[in-house]
Amino acid sequence: MYELGVVYRTITRADREATDRMAALGSATVHEAMGRVGLLKPYMRPIYTGSQVAGTAVTVLLHPGDNWMMHVAAEQIQPGDIVVAAITAECTDGYFGDLLATSFQARGARALIIDAGVRDVKVLAEMGFPVWSKCISSKGTIKATLGSVNIPVICAGALVNPGDVIVADDDGVVCVPAARAVEVAEAAAKRESFEGEKRAKLASGVLGLDMYKMREPLAAAGLKYID
Amino acid sequence: MYELGVVYRTITRADREATDRMAALGSATVHEAMGRVGLLKPYMRPIYTGSQVAGTAVTVLLHPGDNWMMHVAAEQIQPGDIVVAAITAECTDGYFGDLLATSFQARGARALIIDAGVRDVKVLAEMGFPVWSKCISSKGTIKATLGSVNIPVICAGALVNPGDVIVADDDGVVCVPAARAVEVAEAAAKRESFEGEKRAKLASGVLGLDMYKMREPLAAAGLKYID
Amino acid sequence: MYELGVVYRTITRADREATDRMAALGSATVHEAMGRVGLLKPYMRPIYTGSQVAGTAVTVLLHPGDNWMMHVAAEQIQPGDIVVAAITAECTDGYFGDLLATSFQARGARALIIDAGVRDVKVLAEMGFPVWSKCISSKGTIKATLGSVNIPVICAGALVNPGDVIVADDDGVVCVPAARAVEVAEAAAKRESFEGEKRAKLASGVLGLDMYKMREPLAAAGLKYID
Amino acid sequence: MYELGVVYRTITRADREATDRMAALGSATVHEAMGRVGLLKPYMRPIYTGSQVAGTAVTVLLHPGDNWMMHVAAEQIQPGDIVVAAITAECTDGYFGDLLATSFQARGARALIIDAGVRDVKVLAEMGFPVWSKCISSKGTIKATLGSVNIPVICAGALVNPGDVIVADDDGVVCVPAARAVEVAEAAAKRESFEGEKRAKLASGVLGLDMYKMREPLAAAGLKYID
Amino acid sequence: MYELGVVYRTITRADREATDRMAALGSATVHEAMGRVGLLKPYMRPIYTGSQVAGTAVTVLLHPGDNWMMHVAAEQIQPGDIVVAAITAECTDGYFGDLLATSFQARGARALIIDAGVRDVKVLAEMGFPVWSKCISSKGTIKATLGSVNIPVICAGALVNPGDVIVADDDGVVCVPAARAVEVAEAAAKRESFEGEKRAKLASGVLGLDMYKMREPLAAAGLKYID
Amino acid sequence: MYELGVVYRTITRADREATDRMAALGSATVHEAMGRVGLLKPYMRPIYTGSQVAGTAVTVLLHPGDNWMMHVAAEQIQPGDIVVAAITAECTDGYFGDLLATSFQARGARALIIDAGVRDVKVLAEMGFPVWSKCISSKGTIKATLGSVNIPVICAGALVNPGDVIVADDDGVVCVPAARAVEVAEAAAKRESFEGEKRAKLASGVLGLDMYKMREPLAAAGLKYID
Repeated sequence: MYELGVVYRTITRADREATDRMAALGSATVHEAMGRVGLLKPYMRPIYTGSQVAGTAVTVLLHPGDNWMMHVAAEQIQPGDIVVAAITAECTDGYFGDLLATSFQARGARALIIDAGVRDVKVLAEMGFPVWSKCISSKGTIKATLGSVNIPVICAGALVNPGDVIVADDDGVVCVPAARAVEVAEAAAKRESFEGEKRAKLASGVLGLDMYKMREPLAAAGLKYID
Repeated sequence: MYELGVVYRTITRADREATDRMAALGSATVHEAMGRVGLLKPYMRPIYTGSQVAGTAVTVLLHPGDNWMMHVAAEQIQPGDIVVAAITAECTDGYFGDLLATSFQARGARALIIDAGVRDVKVLAEMGFPVWSKCISSKGTIKATLGSVNIPVICAGALVNPGDVIVADDDGVVCVPAARAVEVAEAAAKRESFEGEKRAKLASGVLGLDMYKMREPLAAAGLKYID
Repeated sequence: MYELGVVYRTITRADREATDRMAALGSATVHEAMGRVGLLKPYMRPIYTGSQVAGTAVTVLLHPGDNWMMHVAAEQIQPGDIVVAAITAECTDGYFGDLLATSFQARGARALIIDAGVRDVKVLAEMGFPVWSKCISSKGTIKATLGSVNIPVICAGALVNPGDVIVADDDGVVCVPAARAVEVAEAAAKRESFEGEKRAKLASGVLGLDMYKMREPLAAAGLKYID
Repeated sequence: MYELGVVYRTITRADREATDRMAALGSATVHEAMGRVGLLKPYMRPIYTGSQVAGTAVTVLLHPGDNWMMHVAAEQIQPGDIVVAAITAECTDGYFGDLLATSFQARGARALIIDAGVRDVKVLAEMGFPVWSKCISSKGTIKATLGSVNIPVICAGALVNPGDVIVADDDGVVCVPAARAVEVAEAAAKRESFEGEKRAKLASGVLGLDMYKMREPLAAAGLKYID
Repeated sequence: MYELGVVYRTITRADREATDRMAALGSATVHEAMGRVGLLKPYMRPIYTGSQVAGTAVTVLLHPGDNWMMHVAAEQIQPGDIVVAAITAECTDGYFGDLLATSFQARGARALIIDAGVRDVKVLAEMGFPVWSKCISSKGTIKATLGSVNIPVICAGALVNPGDVIVADDDGVVCVPAARAVEVAEAAAKRESFEGEKRAKLASGVLGLDMYKMREPLAAAGLKYID
Repeated sequence: MYELGVVYRTITRADREATDRMAALGSATVHEAMGRVGLLKPYMRPIYTGSQVAGTAVTVLLHPGDNWMMHVAAEQIQPGDIVVAAITAECTDGYFGDLLATSFQARGARALIIDAGVRDVKVLAEMGFPVWSKCISSKGTIKATLGSVNIPVICAGALVNPGDVIVADDDGVVCVPAARAVEVAEAAAKRESFEGEKRAKLASGVLGLDMYKMREPLAAAGLKYID
């Protein structure tokens, strides 16, 4: 891991249809369906609300204050990809702005996930190019040191391999290993299919206590009601 | 305090009319009127802006990563209540989503205040169910350990007793003890009644220095003007 | 530095035209043009998105939990100024609300930059008075201790002298020394003038690798492509 | 709660013998014995390691940057007390130094617990006066605003009533309600009495898996071993 | 990654001799020799200073507030191992105390690295069992949910595979992939061998500017000296 | 401010005798004597306890992850100086270790103050070279980008001009402008001279309430005693 100065041009992207299905299901349902793992730390927030996307990861490893490899990554983007950027140390600089977004968008990228800062966020919102980042910062970066593209990276506490599925929305960002994409999409869709009925019941005033049959286990655990 | 495994079904809710008056006055005015105490830490933020509510507290104490008691709390909600959720240790998990919100809303809850994370925030905004939380996270929780409902809790640094008034808006969240609700609503309304006139004066160019007669005490304190 | 209990009434404001040009250019471009210095820490965030302003700094130094000097600062505001507020120790209190904003706006202030909290943020947004702050808090302040107005202050990690240019937008806040205002506005405008052409090229699919002629230096640095 | 400007001179202190027993048992064992509640947030750290104390709480509520009430609290100290200081808003100032420590020590105080900063920490260590605090800061405070002494306070996320037992050591700080002191001391001592035997078994190589008979419940929960 | 409910009993441990050599070289030299990757976030701190260890990783994935799997991990420890504990969400609870340390030590573990809290730190220091953790907390944990042992985990931002080398000292914690252990130990030893001579030169007053021949590249980069 | 790529070789150092007197007085007393300004943020902590130093500032501005200018700064050190290092953006890397410390010590530096990380802290302690830093990190840095030496810098929120006095001990770090060194040393010494008598009185049981004659102003402010 963390080989420096290399670009892997050939990566195995997760199943496209499964990836696209997960966009509609959202990060919370997908995360649940995976067994509650694969979440990026909740400090990762969208620069504007309302986006909900899924795509296959092109990964990039950068150094603090240096965005040189972003340009190298751009060439590896294929339509439907999401770029996932990790930094070798904590950094709040603005690695990415409207010019790079224009390039990424032209290549077919659906979003950027970056464990650092971005800028030009007003323009990015106007362009409809969603970004999930640690922070927002006007501070630009230099182009001096080699990182890598399409190696496994750790982004905001989660391992992301090139080709993995990234699901991101207002709730956060989840990474699904490429090999599990179809299975997880299936499981997530199944979860989702039960939600409508549950929602209707709860809306009608039925309590979760009854719908989920929790009263007995709660009593068994010793819960006491006091009037 | 912090009795575990109990649900108090009978609580004394603060005066309803006083509670409702405070919604219109907002957290800053109410906080001022109480003598500048009772504020939850400012890391508590609304998941969407523009809501301004007040309600009577139904409290719930939960364990890290476990939202079992949320369902127990739902049954204790009466119209006009706000659920206040505290956790026994720091946690960023998403304890609450659209299904629980549907249930809470069906019971008449006006909002949730939680010292942890929530999810499905886009749907919650569409439903118009306001939440003030420490963070947002896709990560779900288990249902394994007993907490309590309607015991005194400390939420984001503030003591909240069941039945207390919670006032929440874009500025933050304030807790008013039930016994002081009428008095504080009165004092807050009085403060507010002076604001219009002050605003008009300041808008016309009158300085606070003159309006509040600060020049003399500032000079007495030793303030020097240098040209 | 940090003389207490003084108000400097005569300050040298940066060139007005240069200041106004920088508003349109934005904080990221201006920061770049200055050589990537002068940025306030990225924890400084706008209370509502979409504002983009520049103005000349009126500085104020305050004590934790005490906003007395805000009223003293109000009198020193001239049209086109931005008030920059620093605190002598870390504080999250709400130093500023709609009444002070009304007064500042009546004096011609364009914005407030404060390394602490503010409140009444909903009303401030309705008034169109932009604020960049460390946090939002309902908690008010007292009026008991002297600070200073128009002395050099350090706000969110940046030195701001009275009269300096402040440029603030959704990307953050930058301070340009008054003496460099014309030069930096010039350099920033030049940067900006190249952006349109670059954006068009990138949008057409040209890669930054080629547009910026990066392939050779990357190869020289040892970058390897693996298929 | 949070009545300002009052000093309660008569408080009911927890049982002295129970309090003293808990000092020897330590915060982790006491916390466990209480049912895992009552812990102050783990950011509260000792200014020097190795102290282990218990005492009865004299509480004080202070304002940001103002330590006036510390002197008022000093008069209320009785031998065996621990002063617990809460602030009405987040503050990092150094509220307490060697002079106040000399006074507190002369009055018989065993420690200070403060949700803010202290200073003169080298001298405090030499004096053997232990402090658990949020931070250390050279910055002094003013004496201008009234707080209160011996009202219930929330210190680092825990409710502390005057007279409650405070147990503090290198692991953290725990508050035991005065009314539960005897019972909790008893339960904690019982826990402790089993520890020696367990330690001996584990030291001899017996696994917790066997000692606690966990293999069966783990298998029941579905744990799989893969060679 | 992040398979739940499994224990891998057969792992390939890094070369023992290379592992042991790295203990003497320390985390900074090893990190440098690896190309400046593999570092756990610097918030990971030793509970007492002065320890310098290296060992082979036995990994464990735990849930917030639940240390059940620690006991499962204990059985997989072999002499020379270091246990690396990751949590599925942020948690500050005290997962580990003197009893578990006794068991780990009896099994031959050299240290614990945990991205959460520990307790009984005074006793751990007396036992000479070093721990690097995110925090210290008296708060205990439950035993209710399955995690896994000896799967790849992300601990404090670094990927750790079972069998990898962990090097930890007062500067921090570094993970070296098992496959690179011999090569990295070699490179680190070579780096170290040059240090003595350099140190002697610098101690005699020779400047790094001259010793590293930096004057020319600095001048080429445009550095100007002003008298 | 923040001119890049320059080294000022001629700086005006504060009065040596005044500087040396302040070492003995400590940061808290000096800070008090200056009017409670000039403190670096309290996150700046010594890497080992017990040091108490004062010296004249040699400043250095560095880029994130790049310590090239440290070597340039070394040449500008004169006996009695303290190096003050600021970074253009937040960074936790380890910029400084035992080799640089050897060089700095050979040049007569008394300490390093750095708003970033350092490493080799065990060796630094053995060498008796004190450092106050934001953090500790094994991660090294590159040598690629020019910063500056002996320009005014902002370090941990405080403005430091070359030649200013730095006073640092276990309580924190304070910067005294060179021009005020004699006056502040005088005022601090005077404060200190009163402390012995006060300490004796307080140790004998006299209350601060009486010694400082606070009872009357407290009563005037409205303090009420309740039995």
